[in-house]
Amino acid sequence: MNLSSPDVSPPDQALVSPAVQPCDHPQQNPLKIGIMASGTGSNFVAIADAISQQHLAAQIQLVIYNNPNAPVADRARERGIPAALLNHRDFSQREAFDQQIVDLLHTADVEWVVMVGWMRRVTHVLIDAFPDRIINIHPSLLPSFPGIRAIEQAIEYGVTISGCTVHIVRLEVDSGPILMQAAVPVHPEDTPTSLHHRIQVQEHDIIIQAIAQIAQPHTSHNLLTHRH
Amino acid sequence: MNLSSPDVSPPDQALVSPAVQPCDHPQQNPLKIGIMASGTGSNFVAIADAISQQHLAAQIQLVIYNNPNAPVADRARERGIPAALLNHRDFSQREAFDQQIVDLLHTADVEWVVMVGWMRRVTHVLIDAFPDRIINIHPSLLPSFPGIRAIEQAIEYGVTISGCTVHIVRLEVDSGPILMQAAVPVHPEDTPTSLHHRIQVQEHDIIIQAIAQIAQPHTSHNLLTHRH
Repeated sequence: MNLSSPDVSPPDQALVSPAVQPCDHPQQNPLKIGIMASGTGSNFVAIADAISQQHLAAQIQLVIYNNPNAPVADRARERGIPAALLNHRDFSQREAFDQQIVDLLHTADVEWVVMVGWMRRVTHVLIDAFPDRIINIHPSLLPSFPGIRAIEQAIEYGVTISGCTVHIVRLEVDSGPILMQAAVPVHPEDTPTSLHHRIQVQEHDIIIQAIAQIAQPHTSHNLLTHRH
Repeated sequence: MNLSSPDVSPPDQALVSPAVQPCDHPQQNPLKIGIMASGTGSNFVAIADAISQQHLAAQIQLVIYNNPNAPVADRARERGIPAALLNHRDFSQREAFDQQIVDLLHTADVEWVVMVGWMRRVTHVLIDAFPDRIINIHPSLLPSFPGIRAIEQAIEYGVTISGCTVHIVRLEVDSGPILMQAAVPVHPEDTPTSLHHRIQVQEHDIIIQAIAQIAQPHTSHNLLTHRH
């Protein structure tokens, strides 16, 4: 058998598929987004760079992070973007923690919330404040491998294709309508690190595409109407 | 955003990924396979054509089908391949039904069993007779959407990428080590029929690739060793 038949991708290409095709109508006002992150912030950097290179009609109002040592804070500040630390350990109730997040997002005039590696479960307080206006990126092809350790789960199961998913956030972890997915191969020699790197490249691509869809007034109204 | 960036597949391409890369060593003796099918037999036709075009070093010893009206029977006979009807309704016990299948497969000197749309649950009788030598093709990217109505499940969930999986058959439905997967886009306007057609093209490709892997003595021993 020949792997290079014309309708088959070479081994390290990816397949990217949106729920709604982006259109080309530029928007007058950039979409005002808030970013919630727990980790390195590589998706934040990808989004910020896409905006500064004028590939994305959005504006990051605020970055909220919950880990005092999260590198995303420095990356935000060096770009002149406000970064607010909210340590969940300072709150005894998840709802109180989420209410503080909501207050910060409202103060910053955020329209849509983008979770990039936010490692805390959300409550109805956050969901209700931004109904169907919170998106998350998850490093698997949902509904496969929800929850933590998604990349390790994929390797342990032995799938030969994995990927990432941008979805609307609902109360149940990693549920909610899918906006966009990208698939990548998993090779027999992959480690969690090597697979993570391959998926991360696609995460950067589809999180930007998803925000671009939302920012386009002609498509954003229809994001959730075709199947959910 | 531009969907046609160089590392992204055009919308209707597919991503195909084997667990083990096929190698090019031709085998002296073709692999003797038995096919189990319940339906139209389009995967059977793809396999038979690949063999007759000398793309696949295998030989179909026998087709077993369980539905008296299955079109696969005529397709086998018009190619001169024996087709045996075993109607599960004639058996009160699943085990007795499977024992009859095993007897037929053994009589036909089958080495590996290939299930293409076989809609009956298997028992330990069949599994034990061909340990880790039965493969199945399933129309989803497992572990997403196991069981029946996989394509309808994918559309109802709203995934934007689905596909198909070739795996070793174990007792639990649609579990077992994965040999190969292929991913395809799901479009907002897709129906079960249109998505089924898109997936079926990839099914034909990966079932042939999987059999080719098995038929190659240099790789077949290692099919199950890298993760399971």
